[in-house]
Amino acid sequence: MSKSTDELFKNVISHAKEYGFVFPSSEIYDGLSAVYDYGQNGAELKNNIKTYWWKAMVQMNDNIVGIDSAIFMHPKIWKASGHVDGFSDPMIDNKDSKKRYRADQLLEDKIERYSKDGKTDKAEKLQHDMDEALKAENLPRLKELILEHEIADPISGTRNWTDVRQFNLMFSTQMGAVADDADTIYLRPETAQGIFVNYLNVQKSGRMKIPFGIAQIGKAFRNEVIARQFIIRMREFEQMEMQFFVRPGTQKEWFDQWKAARLKWHLALGTDAAKYRYHEHTKLAHYADAAYDIEFEFPFGFKEVEGIHSRTNFDLSQHQEFSGKKMQYFDPEVDPETGKPYGNYIPYVIETSIGLDRMFLLTMINAYEEEDLSTEDKQDSRTVLRLHPCLAPVKAAIFPLTKKDGLPEKAREIMDKLKLDFNIQYEEKDAIGKRYRRQDAIGTPFCITVDHQTLEDNTVTIRYRDSMAQERVPADELDKIIGDQVSWRNVLA
Amino acid sequence: MSKSTDELFKNVISHAKEYGFVFPSSEIYDGLSAVYDYGQNGAELKNNIKTYWWKAMVQMNDNIVGIDSAIFMHPKIWKASGHVDGFSDPMIDNKDSKKRYRADQLLEDKIERYSKDGKTDKAEKLQHDMDEALKAENLPRLKELILEHEIADPISGTRNWTDVRQFNLMFSTQMGAVADDADTIYLRPETAQGIFVNYLNVQKSGRMKIPFGIAQIGKAFRNEVIARQFIIRMREFEQMEMQFFVRPGTQKEWFDQWKAARLKWHLALGTDAAKYRYHEHTKLAHYADAAYDIEFEFPFGFKEVEGIHSRTNFDLSQHQEFSGKKMQYFDPEVDPETGKPYGNYIPYVIETSIGLDRMFLLTMINAYEEEDLSTEDKQDSRTVLRLHPCLAPVKAAIFPLTKKDGLPEKAREIMDKLKLDFNIQYEEKDAIGKRYRRQDAIGTPFCITVDHQTLEDNTVTIRYRDSMAQERVPADELDKIIGDQVSWRNVLA
Repeated sequence: MSKSTDELFKNVISHAKEYGFVFPSSEIYDGLSAVYDYGQNGAELKNNIKTYWWKAMVQMNDNIVGIDSAIFMHPKIWKASGHVDGFSDPMIDNKDSKKRYRADQLLEDKIERYSKDGKTDKAEKLQHDMDEALKAENLPRLKELILEHEIADPISGTRNWTDVRQFNLMFSTQMGAVADDADTIYLRPETAQGIFVNYLNVQKSGRMKIPFGIAQIGKAFRNEVIARQFIIRMREFEQMEMQFFVRPGTQKEWFDQWKAARLKWHLALGTDAAKYRYHEHTKLAHYADAAYDIEFEFPFGFKEVEGIHSRTNFDLSQHQEFSGKKMQYFDPEVDPETGKPYGNYIPYVIETSIGLDRMFLLTMINAYEEEDLSTEDKQDSRTVLRLHPCLAPVKAAIFPLTKKDGLPEKAREIMDKLKLDFNIQYEEKDAIGKRYRRQDAIGTPFCITVDHQTLEDNTVTIRYRDSMAQERVPADELDKIIGDQVSWRNVLA
Repeated sequence: MSKSTDELFKNVISHAKEYGFVFPSSEIYDGLSAVYDYGQNGAELKNNIKTYWWKAMVQMNDNIVGIDSAIFMHPKIWKASGHVDGFSDPMIDNKDSKKRYRADQLLEDKIERYSKDGKTDKAEKLQHDMDEALKAENLPRLKELILEHEIADPISGTRNWTDVRQFNLMFSTQMGAVADDADTIYLRPETAQGIFVNYLNVQKSGRMKIPFGIAQIGKAFRNEVIARQFIIRMREFEQMEMQFFVRPGTQKEWFDQWKAARLKWHLALGTDAAKYRYHEHTKLAHYADAAYDIEFEFPFGFKEVEGIHSRTNFDLSQHQEFSGKKMQYFDPEVDPETGKPYGNYIPYVIETSIGLDRMFLLTMINAYEEEDLSTEDKQDSRTVLRLHPCLAPVKAAIFPLTKKDGLPEKAREIMDKLKLDFNIQYEEKDAIGKRYRRQDAIGTPFCITVDHQTLEDNTVTIRYRDSMAQERVPADELDKIIGDQVSWRNVLA
């Protein structure tokens, strides 16, 4: 059943809603733009992705520990990190359509148009002029370029533009008792700073020695102007970040190591390697000395899922300057060149940063299949989520063949043993075939049917999601059969 | 080693910081009031408490599912829930000290003083007058009472008061591109509403039949004026809530059942039952028809840890009214009295709501012991966290006896097998006794020492945290020994 990629994406979104993975937030109040809720299967899948990341980063590496810092932080932190002054987009409004656009996005679109029309000179010139203006943060110049190149609002068709203004992407709120004496604080736009400001607390209380890492999973917030593509860009989202603190001069080596390790983490889930690629940043942030994205091929093209960044000692140095507290680490290791300890320095940082919601969408899209099961005699199909068993929301479903003859009781007896170890679902409604389809749709790897023979010999039918094959097995072996397939060892070892 | 309770509490707080459980937020910037970060051991302990709750609620009950709704919600939701109009405290400022107080708190303190001084009449009168004023939301009357009873600011000693004003406890922020066209939204002050507004999405997509529950763990925010007692009352905190939807008329029965089930959950961790008690609410919220707290005896007295509330159909009815969407459930079950299906109704709700941070503190305090190990010859002591093995941040620590002779390599070889299943720590610095003490302090149930004999017969010494007993066991049995103790089955079954 071949579908256009647009259609496929739309189908995944409606499947996600229909089967309790992702609901639009506040839907009964007509929704809240760019905010989503995870339903009963989505919450389990999301938790399983978190667990996989946490185990791979923290449990498997004895020099990495995890923390959980608050969303609220001291406002000076965002001054030090550069977010108060620099975390903004240049925006321009069209006075007729009342629509707002990112000024650089309008120019980028124009450059693309020039290139397509073979006007290479014009494209190059505009690119150059725009880069200069952005670098100098020259907002009036950006407007000039928009006017010079006769860029019109695609909606109103007019060139009736306001001035270009900077718009900060951080959400702010007031902490304290009344507005006039309250402090303005921000909802963190990234989790990383929570790690930087705690790095010495963790290092000292955990007696960590360089190289070591601090990992964190948590919410972050960005007041995106153009939020789009379902859960790809949300105003409230979740990050899984790890900052790895290294000796200055060794960052290249660690960067390469983490770049490889992170792709390996993705591929251990069995995803086709051809769907992944690295993308090297050519324009680096001023504090970075290397940056790569891991991109995945979504239906709408390759998109960043994770970033690996060599951030130098920028953040820690800034915090040292703004807080007035020493951010140095004392390295007792002996430098073979000087014969003396490396001594005091501010560590360099390699960061791995993955968007949990994007990873969630990747997982859904990659698992989603509309499978044609037609034979010569009969048209048939099913929608199946081929999730890795470790990630599946429900590990096994248990069905009494009928609702009588003690079969429900027997099914529940088996379930009561299994549920101590696994998330199990019980279903007794509808024909078995229909129940299989419902479990396929949420990615349950095993369906177990209890029938009259079970009452005699304590065997059950186990049906496998991917092959749809069925097999008769002793009920006492279920714990091992399921356990072997859903064990984290399968993706960690 | 007997300590005053104040001292004990202070010691737990400093222990929590010293051993990487809880750090003051933004500490290098001199902190952010009433906000805390969880360090490397705190994050693990907190995650383990979450896992225990989630497994007990969601995995063990096939009619309860979990969701993960966003912190940002449509602002009308808080109008419907009553938070916009009613979630506020009456505050009064002293003009000399510039300090702000809750007006009712000042009056309560006065009533207590009257009682202590034997002025029972005055105490009763003031109690009655205050209750009347609060009920009528008569703020000027509250000020009158403060003046009439000559209540002075404990700091300035003066009675130079401002008027009493209502102060809403919700944090607000602006969503959208510029302040003037942006929507004011709130950071949720409770997770429950995320469940109510999604209840039909979950019910339909999950084919849930009443009675069923929806569980959720997540952050909530309250701009507390008087935030205090470490992580007992924070401005950013985490809740674990479950809403159980029942047929009207059956709420009493389900309330009793959840009241018992939730205390059982606490006691399954092995905590002394004498430290827990129920507290019945005598003043019920207008929508509630029953409410009990589960209280724990903290060093500063019994305090609420969890609430069980019978909320009637108040919230769902409000959302039906404010959203204009039907919030009814169709119940196909046949009513034995009428012989007809129960049909359409708005379900009643039993809620269980536990503060994760408070549960964390309870766990730390309950586990914390300064144990006297002195003998006739020698003074000795240790600080040990007697955490349930399921909750312990680190399950086992592995020590090579010395740093040479291949012992570190052997220790790492054993660790590399164990770490696939458990959070393991490796330590090779200092004498074994010192390493034991450090692990005791973070509650690690097992310490495993690799020595020269290990190289010969592959046995290790295992040392138990609580008894401090040591035993020689084959390294191949470690997986089972640790696994048996830390299995969730121990607290779920």
